[in-house]
Amino acid sequence: MQVHGGDIYEKEYRMDFSANINPLGTPPKVMEAACEGVRLSTAYPDIRCGKLRQAISETEQIPEDWIICGNGAAELIFALALAVKPGRALLVSPGFAEYEQALRTVDCQIEFYECDKAHGFALQEDYLERITGDLDIIFLCNPGNPTGLLIPQKLLEKIARRCRENHVLLVVDECFNGLLLQGEQVTMKRYLEEMPGLFLLNAFTKLYSMAGLRLGYGLCSDKKLLERISRVTQPWNVSVPAQMAGAAAVKEREFARQSREYIAREREFLKQGLQKLGATYYDSQANYIFFEGPDDLYEKCQEQGILIRDCRNYRGLIAGYYRIAVRTRRENEELLNVLKLVGFADA
Amino acid sequence: MQVHGGDIYEKEYRMDFSANINPLGTPPKVMEAACEGVRLSTAYPDIRCGKLRQAISETEQIPEDWIICGNGAAELIFALALAVKPGRALLVSPGFAEYEQALRTVDCQIEFYECDKAHGFALQEDYLERITGDLDIIFLCNPGNPTGLLIPQKLLEKIARRCRENHVLLVVDECFNGLLLQGEQVTMKRYLEEMPGLFLLNAFTKLYSMAGLRLGYGLCSDKKLLERISRVTQPWNVSVPAQMAGAAAVKEREFARQSREYIAREREFLKQGLQKLGATYYDSQANYIFFEGPDDLYEKCQEQGILIRDCRNYRGLIAGYYRIAVRTRRENEELLNVLKLVGFADA
Repeated sequence: MQVHGGDIYEKEYRMDFSANINPLGTPPKVMEAACEGVRLSTAYPDIRCGKLRQAISETEQIPEDWIICGNGAAELIFALALAVKPGRALLVSPGFAEYEQALRTVDCQIEFYECDKAHGFALQEDYLERITGDLDIIFLCNPGNPTGLLIPQKLLEKIARRCRENHVLLVVDECFNGLLLQGEQVTMKRYLEEMPGLFLLNAFTKLYSMAGLRLGYGLCSDKKLLERISRVTQPWNVSVPAQMAGAAAVKEREFARQSREYIAREREFLKQGLQKLGATYYDSQANYIFFEGPDDLYEKCQEQGILIRDCRNYRGLIAGYYRIAVRTRRENEELLNVLKLVGFADA
Repeated sequence: MQVHGGDIYEKEYRMDFSANINPLGTPPKVMEAACEGVRLSTAYPDIRCGKLRQAISETEQIPEDWIICGNGAAELIFALALAVKPGRALLVSPGFAEYEQALRTVDCQIEFYECDKAHGFALQEDYLERITGDLDIIFLCNPGNPTGLLIPQKLLEKIARRCRENHVLLVVDECFNGLLLQGEQVTMKRYLEEMPGLFLLNAFTKLYSMAGLRLGYGLCSDKKLLERISRVTQPWNVSVPAQMAGAAAVKEREFARQSREYIAREREFLKQGLQKLGATYYDSQANYIFFEGPDDLYEKCQEQGILIRDCRNYRGLIAGYYRIAVRTRRENEELLNVLKLVGFADA
């Protein structure tokens, strides 16, 4: 079985709902910049990611020296684990598998806060009690993956405060933030200055549909931590095409705005469709939806040429949970037709 | 001062002799494949690097499951260190800085075998005595960097045998092998099967001038070790453009052959030029030459728009050592003119 979404290299398929990518694709100027980057790739990449960090700095309104770039956000997760070598971590289950995989590389002891069906898979207030001085690091994904649920702002603020009091490094993965209508309201960026123990992860992967180019970044006001992360990675980790595509991408504000609106509309369309099918789904605010279905739904969809994300291999989940990306109207209609045909025939 | 060659993003320059890249550039089909890869980068990369590994397997005549790909060979050095977590290592000085940097991330104790001017910076037989059961890993670069010197085959075989006897993991960095006329004779590939404790590093960076795309690979018959390396890196470490460029590159045998001949000719041309200038240089077999010059040669060359590699920040070296890449005839002539003008005026 696939460990991640987007398993398009092993499977025959017509449509891929398993990877959470912007259905509007990559802006032409970003594509052009990446191709120009290929032509310039006879040289090594800029190890400082100078122009890219400058471009991110202007868009994010964050000082350049609070920004670190990586070969996808995933690389930064591994580099962070290696730089910090935390002894004890708290993760949320179900959650993105790479936090655990990265922490295991440095033999970190990992505790799990289990989000369960009884509480709608949402983080509860009792999470706060789990943040103690014994911990070195916690990872949160906001909105959650695979759930798409946002952590309530008030709770997130309490978490940040408790982390600061207990000297726990707080990593908030905001890789899907750019795809949210309310992204600017929910980002933790405004806490960066007062909280050097806050590390935000972000990526170009999803919003600009450039998953194959590999480009992510981290934001943190603790420059010594960023320096330590740099030291545990190779100097040339971000390719020339990725650096150039990223610098072009952050200028695409109108594309980003349109994408957010499109995704919000289509997400509601899919939710309504799932409701009509009688499927149990969760209140995602992201560009993907977490829902329940028959145990063989993955295979049934695949037979129809549609890849969805079977979530049974997420820690804390069992068979019968799925995640679908929000795609174009035509694709979403087709998916709902197939779901009705193969999974929810009685609806 | 620059830590690596190729510091083209900080400095004004006309010609870059500081990075060891094939002067014949990138074959057009490789460029096209990389651009096609950009267009396909809305999807995540193949985490198995399936087609790429198949292509390498056919060219290298090595089983597919002995091959691991990375975001440049540099990533594999760091991943190897993290996967093995060696307690004690032996490195050669002067040498490529990333071996040490990678080993430091896992707090490895590092010993150095010092190649010195008295012995022409060549590895001597007494290196063998340094390989003891106390060691976990050794790194060798063949040909050496910055020296360009080949390790004598007999000595290399003795080293391999001693490593096997003492259960020391032997990493041989053959990243420049593809640029050597005698590459097929000096590669350690034929020992892979009988020596699961041999790990060979290779890269597409130099031969195909695709340093900016980031693509390297490792060869090893210890599949468990490769599996461990995979586990300590993110799944999507090799970008789509890099995978596609690499699969196209290995088919460019005629380009590779012409490149080797061109480089061999131009290397001799540069050596003759250095000799005429009265410069002390070393007997490089690679696409770069290590030589001695006045302490301010880097600055003087830079004033003339030429970047060379100042080697004073290599461990074991001091001011007055330089490395130049072998470039095109026109560039090489220009470099020799500049060297005569600014560094060897009395010659």
